[in-house]
Amino acid sequence: MNPVELIRKKRDGKTLTKEEIEFFVSKFTLGRIPNYQFSAFLMAGFLNGFDKNETAWLTEAMLYSGKVIDLSSIKGSKVDKHSTGGVGDKTSLILAPIAAAAGVNVPMISGRGLGHTGGTLDKLESIPGFKTNVTLKQYKSIIKKCGAVLAGQTKEVAPADKLIYALRDVTATVESIPLITGSIMSKKLAEGIDGLVLDVKTGSGAFMKKLTDAQSLAKSLTQTAKSFNKKVISYITDMNQPLGNNIGNWLEVLECLDVMKGKQVNDLVELSLQLSGAMIFLGGKAKSVQEGIDLSKKMIESGKAFDKFIEIAKLQGADITYLKQPEKYPQSKIHEKVYTEKTGFISTINSFEIGMASLELGAGRMTIEDKIDPKAGIILHKKIGDQLKKGDLIAELFTNKKESIETVKNKIAKALSFSNSKIEAPQLIKSTIT
Amino acid sequence: MNPVELIRKKRDGKTLTKEEIEFFVSKFTLGRIPNYQFSAFLMAGFLNGFDKNETAWLTEAMLYSGKVIDLSSIKGSKVDKHSTGGVGDKTSLILAPIAAAAGVNVPMISGRGLGHTGGTLDKLESIPGFKTNVTLKQYKSIIKKCGAVLAGQTKEVAPADKLIYALRDVTATVESIPLITGSIMSKKLAEGIDGLVLDVKTGSGAFMKKLTDAQSLAKSLTQTAKSFNKKVISYITDMNQPLGNNIGNWLEVLECLDVMKGKQVNDLVELSLQLSGAMIFLGGKAKSVQEGIDLSKKMIESGKAFDKFIEIAKLQGADITYLKQPEKYPQSKIHEKVYTEKTGFISTINSFEIGMASLELGAGRMTIEDKIDPKAGIILHKKIGDQLKKGDLIAELFTNKKESIETVKNKIAKALSFSNSKIEAPQLIKSTIT
Repeated sequence: MNPVELIRKKRDGKTLTKEEIEFFVSKFTLGRIPNYQFSAFLMAGFLNGFDKNETAWLTEAMLYSGKVIDLSSIKGSKVDKHSTGGVGDKTSLILAPIAAAAGVNVPMISGRGLGHTGGTLDKLESIPGFKTNVTLKQYKSIIKKCGAVLAGQTKEVAPADKLIYALRDVTATVESIPLITGSIMSKKLAEGIDGLVLDVKTGSGAFMKKLTDAQSLAKSLTQTAKSFNKKVISYITDMNQPLGNNIGNWLEVLECLDVMKGKQVNDLVELSLQLSGAMIFLGGKAKSVQEGIDLSKKMIESGKAFDKFIEIAKLQGADITYLKQPEKYPQSKIHEKVYTEKTGFISTINSFEIGMASLELGAGRMTIEDKIDPKAGIILHKKIGDQLKKGDLIAELFTNKKESIETVKNKIAKALSFSNSKIEAPQLIKSTIT
Repeated sequence: MNPVELIRKKRDGKTLTKEEIEFFVSKFTLGRIPNYQFSAFLMAGFLNGFDKNETAWLTEAMLYSGKVIDLSSIKGSKVDKHSTGGVGDKTSLILAPIAAAAGVNVPMISGRGLGHTGGTLDKLESIPGFKTNVTLKQYKSIIKKCGAVLAGQTKEVAPADKLIYALRDVTATVESIPLITGSIMSKKLAEGIDGLVLDVKTGSGAFMKKLTDAQSLAKSLTQTAKSFNKKVISYITDMNQPLGNNIGNWLEVLECLDVMKGKQVNDLVELSLQLSGAMIFLGGKAKSVQEGIDLSKKMIESGKAFDKFIEIAKLQGADITYLKQPEKYPQSKIHEKVYTEKTGFISTINSFEIGMASLELGAGRMTIEDKIDPKAGIILHKKIGDQLKKGDLIAELFTNKKESIETVKNKIAKALSFSNSKIEAPQLIKSTIT
């Protein structure tokens, strides 16, 4: 096979064979096809698309570029969740313990913050001692002991994805649904799962701003999961406002602890229950998603979810003192309250800007070298549809960076728009794809 | 400016500014934009196109990546011809002396054989001693002395084209009309010309097989030449059969000598007169193309064209003995005659295959390392529309490679198709674009 012929084929809008895609991805991963040919191929694919089969083959080629974890020695179903990312999206920390407490294994491999969004690994690492870079042996042993593990990606998993992603990033070929599908699914399938719940976010704080793009991505991910004989349910969910109230690593852990203790009632709880319900259903521990949701509620009410989280954290090296007595956690130097100067119903929240504001306070990386301040972030007390009058408390800021306070206050003020008439809260779960 | 943003802009089908194109081409030429970004840009441009202005800016950026030859010290108009290449296409050797004899300066920079086609430089170098790699100083001095020069491209001319072409070749981005336009015109404009005659070939032996593609390319080349305030006439001409009868370097020189001596009457003569007529018209030495054609005929009849060719060859170091007494030229070891086994009118000639057959005999390079045998090639005695009966002489082969004779005979037999009813010869000059 000749790389130029394959590029030409895709350039001319033709469909590639499984062997051709396998050849291209594997040779590239081995360094035998140069970057400049692969980038021309990516652009041709970006513009002319890959069909359902090609997307599955692409995913397969990327998956088998590395190690596929074998969890067959672990009894019972293994189910994971993947979210396309958003602001305040912290459901992983809640779902994994709920599903594990309900008897479903959750072998979860997560990522770090990207752009304006936070990452599960960064959130977990705000818990002192919590270790996410576990070996494959530890990964298996932790699942065996407690039914869940919350780990980072190892080098052995889908190396093709790392190389391809780096190239896409510098050649304007990121926003392609088949390429995104290959990237997500090759990593998820390498976990050794039987089932997957997908949370595809849409709105101002999501990577897919438009609903139609989110729908296409959800469809592509679902089809690809099915082509690998995985059980799958996808939800398209709202990211027009931050999920829950807390944004920032330790602040998000705190909110999750509250949810697991049954002390919180908001959109975060609603979405977490939906996703854990689906996981429990796919894992065979409930006859329907609704039954899974009911069981999830029981796991919270009984304290089993919280206990499971403590168990996982302990096995991953965390100092659980801070989880049991969060008040002992170090405090930010600055704790600033933000009051509104406007009156009316909140009509929109630019969640991208809220995410960027949280980064500004120290909660994320502006450059690769930046160190995250785990305590930094925002508590946003208001949601779309809430009625405000001048002087109402809208947000609390936590930071050690005095110089960023004014910028962030401005960002938040600009991120909110108001209406004089009543506004409906956006629908949280927009659609389900099975 | 950010390369990723520019790639994205072209990817999304937007129009780039002059500054953006200039930035991208100049930084790439300096090695400050990596190959993988430029190849993604090329593919985006290949698929989404470049408009008339973008094509001119691309050409300009490539042109000014190197030296633009200043011929202002030479009096009178400077006019060149460019052909997109075909089999047996040897008009340059005839046109340059005719136009120069008529008083038009011809500063001609030519190329080597590419694929199945021959190259003017290879043909000239079959004349013992003929030197095509002249310095800029020699280039100017030869034109000053005799009104024409037939040279190869120097490193200083359009270095961006060399880099971009090499990348296009390995990323399946060759067949793009704006990119081809930039490549051709950046080199031609660097010659220091006032006018240009374009011969865009279409048919089985051309790079543009389809007439519509040839028309688009001719239009793009013409527009671009005009945007640089050059006088220009473009012809779309037939390449469904080899031009003239001889294919192979010295064989083609021989045919040109015959044309210049007025001893030949075929399609090669017709096209050469048309092109030289246009050059003389653009150079201001005739009031119309037709008057230019009449003047061209006089240059042949008077022997001035032949004398001019001898003069140019002498100034470029050639041993003119062989031009005056061609019978003294070394002979091929094998001179094989090919007779037809079929009967009927020739309906099509696969000129690509005829070109490849000539290569096979040693007339061109199969790999970069191959050495050309200047004597090797084919005399094809028959044309489309000719009536043949079994046993008629169809071609003569000249080669030192005994092992290639059978393959080539088969190739030629397969390249011809026959009809029982009368066939019209294809129209040589299909259209004119001014």
